[in-house]
Amino acid sequence: MRAEIIAVGTELLLGHHVDTNSTFIAEELAASGIDCHFQTRVGDNIDRIASALEIALARSDAAIVCGGLGPTQDDVTREALAKVMRVELIRDEETLARTRAIFAARGRKMSPNNEKQADVPIGAQVIPQETGTAPGLICPVGQKAIYALPGVPAEMKEMLRRAVLGDLIARSGERAVIASRTLRTWGMGESLLAQIVAPRVEALDAGGRGVPTIAFLARGIEGISVRVTVKAPDDDAARAALDVEEAELRVLLGDKVFATDEESMEHVIGAMLTERGWKLALAESLTGGLISSRIVAQPGASTWFDGSVVCYASSVKHDLLGIKEGPVVTKDAALAMAGSIRRLLGSDVGLSTTGVAGPDAQEGLAPGTVFVGIALPGEEPEAFGLSLVGSRNQIREVAAITSLDALRRRLLQS
Amino acid sequence: MRAEIIAVGTELLLGHHVDTNSTFIAEELAASGIDCHFQTRVGDNIDRIASALEIALARSDAAIVCGGLGPTQDDVTREALAKVMRVELIRDEETLARTRAIFAARGRKMSPNNEKQADVPIGAQVIPQETGTAPGLICPVGQKAIYALPGVPAEMKEMLRRAVLGDLIARSGERAVIASRTLRTWGMGESLLAQIVAPRVEALDAGGRGVPTIAFLARGIEGISVRVTVKAPDDDAARAALDVEEAELRVLLGDKVFATDEESMEHVIGAMLTERGWKLALAESLTGGLISSRIVAQPGASTWFDGSVVCYASSVKHDLLGIKEGPVVTKDAALAMAGSIRRLLGSDVGLSTTGVAGPDAQEGLAPGTVFVGIALPGEEPEAFGLSLVGSRNQIREVAAITSLDALRRRLLQS
Repeated sequence: MRAEIIAVGTELLLGHHVDTNSTFIAEELAASGIDCHFQTRVGDNIDRIASALEIALARSDAAIVCGGLGPTQDDVTREALAKVMRVELIRDEETLARTRAIFAARGRKMSPNNEKQADVPIGAQVIPQETGTAPGLICPVGQKAIYALPGVPAEMKEMLRRAVLGDLIARSGERAVIASRTLRTWGMGESLLAQIVAPRVEALDAGGRGVPTIAFLARGIEGISVRVTVKAPDDDAARAALDVEEAELRVLLGDKVFATDEESMEHVIGAMLTERGWKLALAESLTGGLISSRIVAQPGASTWFDGSVVCYASSVKHDLLGIKEGPVVTKDAALAMAGSIRRLLGSDVGLSTTGVAGPDAQEGLAPGTVFVGIALPGEEPEAFGLSLVGSRNQIREVAAITSLDALRRRLLQS
Repeated sequence: MRAEIIAVGTELLLGHHVDTNSTFIAEELAASGIDCHFQTRVGDNIDRIASALEIALARSDAAIVCGGLGPTQDDVTREALAKVMRVELIRDEETLARTRAIFAARGRKMSPNNEKQADVPIGAQVIPQETGTAPGLICPVGQKAIYALPGVPAEMKEMLRRAVLGDLIARSGERAVIASRTLRTWGMGESLLAQIVAPRVEALDAGGRGVPTIAFLARGIEGISVRVTVKAPDDDAARAALDVEEAELRVLLGDKVFATDEESMEHVIGAMLTERGWKLALAESLTGGLISSRIVAQPGASTWFDGSVVCYASSVKHDLLGIKEGPVVTKDAALAMAGSIRRLLGSDVGLSTTGVAGPDAQEGLAPGTVFVGIALPGEEPEAFGLSLVGSRNQIREVAAITSLDALRRRLLQS
C-alpha cells in the first residue's frame, strides 16, 4: 500500500506557512506501515490540484489531500475532487443539517458561504466533522481512493486517526495490526539516545523481519520520543509485543523516560502530586507564566495546583515574595522564591525559576543563565543552576520543562 | 517564469523532519517575481527523484532540487540529474581540488566518500561551494534548467542567493517584484470576513490581471490574516500598490485589524502602553498564565509588564487578591480582580480573567463562560462577559487573545 500526501494552499507556495500537516500525516503513515514516496504542495487552483491528484493516483494507491475545504472563495479542493472523479458536486442535506446544528449549538449564525462546505462529489463518502465545520471526504477513483481532510491541524489530526488510517489499512488487505508506543524522554540529546538504544535496534535488525522498528522523533521542548512499532495478528498480540519492547527500552533509558504516548510532563507530575495529596505553587520569573499555563491546560489541575506569582519585575519579587534587595538571578533567590511562594499561597510544594532569557545580559550574566528552586513539605528548599543556549523563547521553554522534570525526579525520591 | 521546488530526503517522507528549506526557497522565489505552482518531496531514490524532476520540467521552466548532494550512499541526486539529462557523470578535477583544499584548510582529513561530491553530469555547470563541502549544479535540459543545491540550510540559502535567483531572473527576461502585506484581524470569523472583503476581491478580479490578489489565512488564536499580494516593476511601485490595497481593506475592516505582517497582539499592546508610560499587571484565573507567558515572550516586556498572579485556586483569589467569599466566575469578581491586581503589584493597568474552561461546569455555569476585567489609571474598572465554545484549551486561548484585544480597543479610546 502506497499513499501520497498533497497539501493545498497558495500560502504554502509563497513560503508564508511551513507545511507541518504533511509532516504529521507522513509520520502517521510510516507508523501504520503505509509507504509514502512523494509529497506535493499545490496552490488554491482547481486545475492544478486536480493535476496533482491525477499524478499521485497514477503512481500510488491512495492520496491524502489536506486543505481547501473551507468556506471562502479560494477553497476549491471539492471542485478539484469532482473533476478527478469526473462527477458533479451535489449538496448533501445530511451534512448541511449537521453544519447548521454545529453553528446553532455554538449560538452563531451560519453564513451562506458555509453551505458550500456541504457540497460533495457524487459517489464520495462524507467523514462527518466533529471538531470543526468542514467535513472530510473519501472519494473512490477506480480501485484507488482520495481522502480529503481540512487544513486546520487539530481537525486534520482527529479525522486522519478516526477515519483515514483504518480505511487505508483495510484497503491494503493487510490483516495484521500495526501498533506503536512512544516513550517520551527528557534530558538527553538525540545522538546519545541513539547510541544507548543502538544495541536493541541492532538486535531487531538482525531479526530481519522489518518489525519491530524503533524510531527517534525530536519534538523540541516536548522531548525526544522513542517510538517502537510492532506488527501482530491481533490487538492483544500487538500489546504484548509492545510491552516486551517497552521493558527492553526502559532498562536502557532508565528515569530519562518521563511518560508514554500522549502523556505530558504536567500529566505525570499531576498524578504524582495527587497521589501524595500535595498542591503546588509557582514563582515564575524567567518562565513568566509558561509553566502555570502548561499546568492549567490539564483538566482537573485544580486538585493539585494552587496558582503562581509571575514575578517579572524585580519589585514584585521584593515586595510580594519578600526576596531580599539585590541580585535576583542567583541560586539564593531561587531558593527564597520557592520557599516564599509555598508560604504565600499556603501550598505544599513550591517551584521557582529565575534567569536571563536574553537577548541582552542581565546582572552581568549571559542569556541562558537559569536557577530553579524546589521546596517540598518538611524539607529545606533546594536549588540548582542551568546554562542553556538558544533564542529567548527556547531558553524559556527549556527552562520550563527542565524545572518540571527536576520536580518529577525529586518527587520520585520523596 | 515558473519554477518548482523539489526537496530530497527520506527523512522528510517519514515525517522526522519538517521541510523548512522549501518554505525558504518559496519565499525567495515569490519575492523575486518567479511563480511557483508546485512543490514536491521525494526520498533518496534515483528513479523517483528523476521522475519528480521530469514531471516538474514538463509543466514549469525550471526546478530547484535541494538535498542529496552529500557524500553518503543515500545521496543520489547527482545520479538522478545525469539520468534526466541523459548523460554520464564525470569527476570534475577543479571541484575535487577545491574540495581537498577546503578539508586541508580546516585541518581535516578528506574521506574517499567526499570525492564523489566532485562528480558532475556532463554539460552541467558547477556552483562552487563556499560554506560547505557540497558544490551546487546548474543543469541545462533543453531550454529549461535544474538547479541542485545542498540540503544543509545555511549552504542552501547562501548558494540560492549567490547563484540561483539571479540566473533564474536572467532566464525569465523579465524583472517584476511580487510583494505581500498581511493585515491581522481578531473578532470576526473567516466567512464573515470573506463577505466583508468580497466587494474588493470582486473589483480586483474584474481587473482580470491576476494581481493584486487577496487571500485569507486562518491562524487559530493568532487571528485571521488578510494577505494582499501585488506585482510591480520595482520595490517602490510594489510598496505603493500595497499601500493602496491596505487603505482599501482598512476601510472595510476598521478596528478589527490589530497588526500588520509579523506583529503580534502583545507587540501592539506593548507599544501602546510604552507610549503612555504605563505598566500592566494581570490576575489570571481561567487563562492560568497564558497571557503572561505570551507577554514575556516579547523582548523588552519588562518596560511595560510588572507581573501576574495566577489565582487558580479560589483561596488565592480570596486570600491574596482580597476577592470577597462567594462565587468567583462573575462580572463582579472580574472587576474586583482587575482593581486588586493593579494595587497589589503597584501597576498602572490591571487586566483579569475568570471563567469555566471545562470540561465540567463550575458554579452552575457552562464551560466557555468567561468574564474579563480592565482597570485603567484614574477610571473605574470595567468588565464584560464572553460565551466561548471549543475544547478546554481553545476556550483558554480565545479568552486570552480576546482579553488582550479588549485591552487594545480600550487603550485606543484612552
